[in-house]
Amino acid sequence: MGLGLGALVLKSGGLSVSDHDSIVAINIFVALLCSCIVIGHLLEGNRWVNESITALVMGLITGGVILLVSGGKNSHILVFNEDLFFIYLLPPIIFNAGFQVKKKQFFRNFMTITLFGAVGTLISFVIISLGAMALFKKLDVGPLQLGDYLAIGAIFSATDSVCTLQVLNQDETPLLYSLVFGEGVVNDATSVVLFNAIEDIDIANFDALVLLAFIGNFLYLFFTSTLLGVVAGLLSAYIIKKLGFARHSTDREVAIMILMAYLSYMLSMLLDLSGILTVFFSGIVMSHYTWHNVTESSRVTTKHTFATLSFIAEIFLFLYVGMDALDIEKWRLASSSPKKPIALSATILGLVMVGRAAFVFPLSFLSNLSKKETRPKISFKQQVIIWWAGLMRGAVSIALAYHKFTASGHTELRINAIMITSTVIVVLFSTMVFGFLTKPLLNFLIPPRPGSVADLSSQSILDPFLGSLLGSDFDVGGQPSPQNNLQLLLTIQTRSVHRVWRKFDDSFMRPVFGGRGFVPFVPGSPVERSTHGSQLGTVTEAEHS
Amino acid sequence: MGLGLGALVLKSGGLSVSDHDSIVAINIFVALLCSCIVIGHLLEGNRWVNESITALVMGLITGGVILLVSGGKNSHILVFNEDLFFIYLLPPIIFNAGFQVKKKQFFRNFMTITLFGAVGTLISFVIISLGAMALFKKLDVGPLQLGDYLAIGAIFSATDSVCTLQVLNQDETPLLYSLVFGEGVVNDATSVVLFNAIEDIDIANFDALVLLAFIGNFLYLFFTSTLLGVVAGLLSAYIIKKLGFARHSTDREVAIMILMAYLSYMLSMLLDLSGILTVFFSGIVMSHYTWHNVTESSRVTTKHTFATLSFIAEIFLFLYVGMDALDIEKWRLASSSPKKPIALSATILGLVMVGRAAFVFPLSFLSNLSKKETRPKISFKQQVIIWWAGLMRGAVSIALAYHKFTASGHTELRINAIMITSTVIVVLFSTMVFGFLTKPLLNFLIPPRPGSVADLSSQSILDPFLGSLLGSDFDVGGQPSPQNNLQLLLTIQTRSVHRVWRKFDDSFMRPVFGGRGFVPFVPGSPVERSTHGSQLGTVTEAEHS
Repeated sequence: MGLGLGALVLKSGGLSVSDHDSIVAINIFVALLCSCIVIGHLLEGNRWVNESITALVMGLITGGVILLVSGGKNSHILVFNEDLFFIYLLPPIIFNAGFQVKKKQFFRNFMTITLFGAVGTLISFVIISLGAMALFKKLDVGPLQLGDYLAIGAIFSATDSVCTLQVLNQDETPLLYSLVFGEGVVNDATSVVLFNAIEDIDIANFDALVLLAFIGNFLYLFFTSTLLGVVAGLLSAYIIKKLGFARHSTDREVAIMILMAYLSYMLSMLLDLSGILTVFFSGIVMSHYTWHNVTESSRVTTKHTFATLSFIAEIFLFLYVGMDALDIEKWRLASSSPKKPIALSATILGLVMVGRAAFVFPLSFLSNLSKKETRPKISFKQQVIIWWAGLMRGAVSIALAYHKFTASGHTELRINAIMITSTVIVVLFSTMVFGFLTKPLLNFLIPPRPGSVADLSSQSILDPFLGSLLGSDFDVGGQPSPQNNLQLLLTIQTRSVHRVWRKFDDSFMRPVFGGRGFVPFVPGSPVERSTHGSQLGTVTEAEHS
Repeated sequence: MGLGLGALVLKSGGLSVSDHDSIVAINIFVALLCSCIVIGHLLEGNRWVNESITALVMGLITGGVILLVSGGKNSHILVFNEDLFFIYLLPPIIFNAGFQVKKKQFFRNFMTITLFGAVGTLISFVIISLGAMALFKKLDVGPLQLGDYLAIGAIFSATDSVCTLQVLNQDETPLLYSLVFGEGVVNDATSVVLFNAIEDIDIANFDALVLLAFIGNFLYLFFTSTLLGVVAGLLSAYIIKKLGFARHSTDREVAIMILMAYLSYMLSMLLDLSGILTVFFSGIVMSHYTWHNVTESSRVTTKHTFATLSFIAEIFLFLYVGMDALDIEKWRLASSSPKKPIALSATILGLVMVGRAAFVFPLSFLSNLSKKETRPKISFKQQVIIWWAGLMRGAVSIALAYHKFTASGHTELRINAIMITSTVIVVLFSTMVFGFLTKPLLNFLIPPRPGSVADLSSQSILDPFLGSLLGSDFDVGGQPSPQNNLQLLLTIQTRSVHRVWRKFDDSFMRPVFGGRGFVPFVPGSPVERSTHGSQLGTVTEAEHS
């Protein structure tokens, strides 16, 4: 424990003041971040480009310039660092997503999201693994074990939630956003279980029992991670409600919220759970309870602070991935046969597309089956968007690839170098080309209606009397007209779950943990109006509004 | 350059995900931060304790527990890290101080502040150095060079601005706050120059020319550092005004402000200037121009975000100093003669008190001489408070001591270990005992008047029509009644400087860079009212309001 603290202190602050180079590096990075924001703003009117693509391109250019300046020698420079990503960049992004997510939309589609995130990821994993086994041998890439193929399946089944945030807009396409983004969050839990399972797996003795253990493991991980996030959120709500910081200090309230959220994430990492799930749910709980217990200025501040931190972390991340792409050491190691990484990447991209199609369309059909007549189904056009918007692979894939195929960023094996460079190519290509095309595709398939922003899901926040977090609109409207037994069963279950939750929330949770209605609340006050629903999406889609 | 970037990536994110100990360490630290905030809140009513003392004590306890758990063996654990301090913790604290400082009060006393910070620090430096030379020999501490004595003078002349923020309240005692805190900021520039001068100095050839070079160096450093901060602030104002982020996104505005401020600090470090001065002035300029160019929600957000980040950094810092105090390696090395560090610390504390008295009272007298009859002079009681509140030595002293007496935190020499442990004792004692007594002393010497918070200096912010940043109240009131030539000269100079600045600001600066009156501004809107002047001070003094 003590040693760990020492490691923290020595490493996390490991830049020596006298270390001139490190200070230069920080300056370059911060200056690049500023430029990305300004350029991203200038390109805002452009329908093709978004902030992440700008950052990626700027990262690539900077990486190229550094390579040129150093005479192509600095091969060890731009090694991707999993920990910078998992410990500093990812938590604010996912927490903010949970904090700003439209909860009603999210929980209404909870079953579908879980189906996509858990079952869908498994289907994709199996298809990519099997496909890789069948096709890679023809490419003659080198000696890969069965474990490697399974790892490839897991790496490329990891949807990039951060990219989703960039290409889909919560206000314009709330259903699609909640489905694709929610899937990405649940997907993370599946990936963690998959990856751990693969590392421990005894392939010779693979049978039904192993599969059962796997499912049990997933359920355990899913529920404990969620529970941890919920407990952290409730604790923050309770502390702030009981101590009544509100009388004195916004700083303390905001600090407690930030620190508790981060603590839940790090605790989750410590316990080998899914940090992403934990911090996502702590964000949801905080926005449902804690946010209503704080002062008005704390509400404005938290809303925007979390969004800003997430915004900076996102740009940082894409910049970083862009710079990392030019890791000359691996390119050189892999380039003895330059055709291979290209062919490999193309194969992987094809498998990713097939693997995703193999679960999006069947599972959407299943999900539609269980829906009430009165509720909108997932149309075929929407299914295409869901399929497309989840094709992007990002920093999570790169981090997993580095974890699997290198020892802290370095490798001597040609096959490993080829795998890393292929992953980088897949990520760059999918983020830039697929990301590039998402907005036009969306406009083509589902043309934006004027004024479509003010749909039901955003009204539910704008009008504080419409209802609580969940369920109020599950009780209005006609009786369901079930068509078959499965649908009847699911409809009844959904309705009763929501009703029970709402009752429980009103009679037990809110009196203890606060929340809307249990603290002074001025409906439609200027601050409320000016902040709700305006800063939720990222900025690139602002042209539509 | 390339190498530096690699170092950044490798070091700043050097915590391996698989490194279980580091994650434990982060968990402990974040949990401690949360506890400090909660305990600090619970102790708020207590007139003796403030948040920094709570954090120090909790740090000491945690350090003790870790020592016990590790069986007293982990001597390399809690080494103070200069870089964590200078690169991550100090910038947000000083930037926030500049951002929230009452500018009118600050610039009105600018001459006095500069006098204290530059000349005063020099006087203190000379007295402590000479005193150490005379007294340390009697204590037989070991072989110290002339350069070491000079370094001791510089280390213990560094006032701790962060402690000042904790013990003095800007709203209750605006004059004292601006004097003592402003002195601390200017003091930093002096310390940097002193430290660099000492390292380069050729003691054999010390003459008038060297002194002149020293003064020139100080002036160069002071002006370039200030200029860099001002340019960064103006640039952020210009970018935000020109690009009109306001229409779309609070996130971008807030991100640009944070990143530009940090960039100015790091650039200052890169150019070997005083980062503290730079980031302080960038805070001042941003609050004068940039802050008025952004949306209403950005204003609330920035105000509280900067305060929160600073708040977390302050607690982190004190927690860290507390944990670091139990650096067993140095204690063991120094403890061969356990009496020595105690005697040494007592001597240093005495010298610090004498050294500070030697400039506070004479310079206050000088400053009073130059003041108009109608303007308040610094009373003797106030001088005592200024003397007392600046006695605390903090993280800056520790950082400088580590820089001078260790090689990246470690040392084998007994004399160096003794110097480090003595510094730690001085810092702990002055922060805890002096900090403890500041509030009671203040209440005893200057009892708080009821309603004293709403004095002129806070009204100038509350009432947007009262005037601009500077000078409006320098033109009202009767003619000055100069008593002697010096006073006449200074009075006239002060008035004309202010008038020229105001004209320049109105006719050139504001049209270009924005600021109050040049962007839509709703006086007394709810957000304005609820945030101005309420979150400025730290929380510990809230009992008076």
